[in-house]
Amino acid sequence: MGREPNGQDRTTAVKEHDAPSSEPLRTKKREKAGDQDGKISGKALGRTVEAFMRLPGIGRKSAERLAFAVLGMPREEAAGIAQAILDLKNSSRYCLVCNNITEEEICGVCRDEKRDRTVICVVEEPSNILVLEKTGTFRGQYHALLGALSPLDGVGPEDLKIDGLMQRLKAGGVIEVIIATNPTVKGETTAMYLAKLIKPLGISVSRIAYGLPVGGDIEYADENTVQRALQGRREM
Amino acid sequence: MGREPNGQDRTTAVKEHDAPSSEPLRTKKREKAGDQDGKISGKALGRTVEAFMRLPGIGRKSAERLAFAVLGMPREEAAGIAQAILDLKNSSRYCLVCNNITEEEICGVCRDEKRDRTVICVVEEPSNILVLEKTGTFRGQYHALLGALSPLDGVGPEDLKIDGLMQRLKAGGVIEVIIATNPTVKGETTAMYLAKLIKPLGISVSRIAYGLPVGGDIEYADENTVQRALQGRREM
Repeated sequence: MGREPNGQDRTTAVKEHDAPSSEPLRTKKREKAGDQDGKISGKALGRTVEAFMRLPGIGRKSAERLAFAVLGMPREEAAGIAQAILDLKNSSRYCLVCNNITEEEICGVCRDEKRDRTVICVVEEPSNILVLEKTGTFRGQYHALLGALSPLDGVGPEDLKIDGLMQRLKAGGVIEVIIATNPTVKGETTAMYLAKLIKPLGISVSRIAYGLPVGGDIEYADENTVQRALQGRREM
Repeated sequence: MGREPNGQDRTTAVKEHDAPSSEPLRTKKREKAGDQDGKISGKALGRTVEAFMRLPGIGRKSAERLAFAVLGMPREEAAGIAQAILDLKNSSRYCLVCNNITEEEICGVCRDEKRDRTVICVVEEPSNILVLEKTGTFRGQYHALLGALSPLDGVGPEDLKIDGLMQRLKAGGVIEVIIATNPTVKGETTAMYLAKLIKPLGISVSRIAYGLPVGGDIEYADENTVQRALQGRREM
């Protein structure tokens, strides 16, 4: 299994996401909420509401609920949350082999001798590895690209961790690559690009299935999904 | 406006909620999630997932999403969240007059000279004050009881901040008390108890209205709510 020679930016801190374009508006909203809440329930509370609103999916109401929950916690527990956030930023890095999040040079999955080294599952983000691991069905290795191809946003192959993947494949031993990028235009583009690159190496390339989500209602599925579910039908 | 003579426990830190009875089970679940995630994506991430799961309404999946969001934040922003949590616990206290959350002796609402001092709105928790303030319709004072009567849980009148309320009322100047405790059995019990206590002082006591939530569908409302909405009907 080859390491990337050009691993310079991997040993540094985890990549920070660019602020989305709506950031100035969101900042304004946050500051307003923090100010208003601060006037009513103290500045410390207002600042905490503002801080929590920086997290994805946390609006003003949730942020207020969380802030009051922290207020009602034992001091050590609240301090524990604060410390965990600091530690996370300070000690997490990308695995030198697969770009998973880890505190060591090589992540737990890559170090695990019992895992199948003949299959690599390619994902967009390290967080996807967590999702796949929780199914408990995949026992191979992973490779996180740290993004997906998006020509419109100026994200090309050189912006993804594709070199490292190719080196791992060229080092030999891998017989199948499962591409588990997102079921989106970007993810699909990336999957097709990778398939074209990997197939000439004589390695089998597969794509995870599209279809109806388990527990979903066919009535609410969009046409594309239903079409894919039909195409992907399997004999029972 | 009288201050509470027995204000000793108010100048100390904000009351910490007792752990609910399901706490051992929740702790186990949190630790398991933290361990599993820690094995896959590093211990720092596992600990942060565990920490976020301590917050209300944050399950494992949300905690993981938040942890990866923190990981993708600029370092100062993550540190800001951690600091806000610490500051909140260290500098927030109860207002000596109304038990709102504040960083001063007396909260911003109580200090505001422009507010109507003839009306006091009684709520269970300081967080309720934030909700009422956001409506922008109430310009009087507040009083947070820091709980509600619950004989089954052993919570009696002496466990609530009722003494302080009565002293404010006896000091004179208040002509109406609006009871805005929760529309639950506990809140209702508390409302009735307070009404009995306050009415002899010659002060008008009102209860916030029960009815259909705005934007709700009558089809999905429970019978009790519909019954209350009918009883509370107003001429158009």
